[in-house]
Amino acid sequence: MELVSAIDFEKSGGLVTAIAVDDASGDVLMVGWMNREAVLRTLETGEVVYWSRSRKALWRKGETSGFVQRVRSVHLDCDGDALLLRVEQVGGAACHTGHRSCFFRRSEGGRWVEEGEPLFDPEEVYGR
Amino acid sequence: MELVSAIDFEKSGGLVTAIAVDDASGDVLMVGWMNREAVLRTLETGEVVYWSRSRKALWRKGETSGFVQRVRSVHLDCDGDALLLRVEQVGGAACHTGHRSCFFRRSEGGRWVEEGEPLFDPEEVYGR
Repeated sequence: MELVSAIDFEKSGGLVTAIAVDDASGDVLMVGWMNREAVLRTLETGEVVYWSRSRKALWRKGETSGFVQRVRSVHLDCDGDALLLRVEQVGGAACHTGHRSCFFRRSEGGRWVEEGEPLFDPEEVYGR
Repeated sequence: MELVSAIDFEKSGGLVTAIAVDDASGDVLMVGWMNREAVLRTLETGEVVYWSRSRKALWRKGETSGFVQRVRSVHLDCDGDALLLRVEQVGGAACHTGHRSCFFRRSEGGRWVEEGEPLFDPEEVYGR
């Protein structure tokens, strides 16, 4: 597949960085990893599939929560080792903490401070 | 340093993912890597310093081109292994190709198509 052959999976041992951006707001939601199969499944299904480094398994985003990411457009960086996906984030929140973005901590005065309120209660969505 | 101690450098062998976002437009400019020293220098100097995996060296963005990235704010993701930096991109273009963003290729009809025009001529900036 021409799209996939331009992607450089070698630099990170078979993986590429995948940044998910909210297509409506342009905000970065999260960053994950994809192997070749995750990229292919994402392109085929139109919903984002990552590679979980901790679980060493394909991970369809939202498979537990229902909060899938619908692909609006796919972008590749200059050296081919990172993808950027503009997505519709179902449920509005990408982070397992319930925050809209995983990047909800901001440096301020030498400390990390949390910004924004969670949109859902993780215990309700994922159970205990 | 409290900021750095919350960062998880272990998952990627001493490195964290670092996403640079244009503070004015909110657009993702590039993604790079930082080791602990790169993070410290970035925080101390207010200009972004990456770790170059290919050169295995610290890399002050713009050290050759002059197109440095001035840090406006720093954000950490939920599991602490990725940073997002909102920056002022001096010169307007982050990519060594002259494009504003390194993600200037978009998937369309099974091919990568280039978007936008380069803002500078790489040969003029970097020499031949």
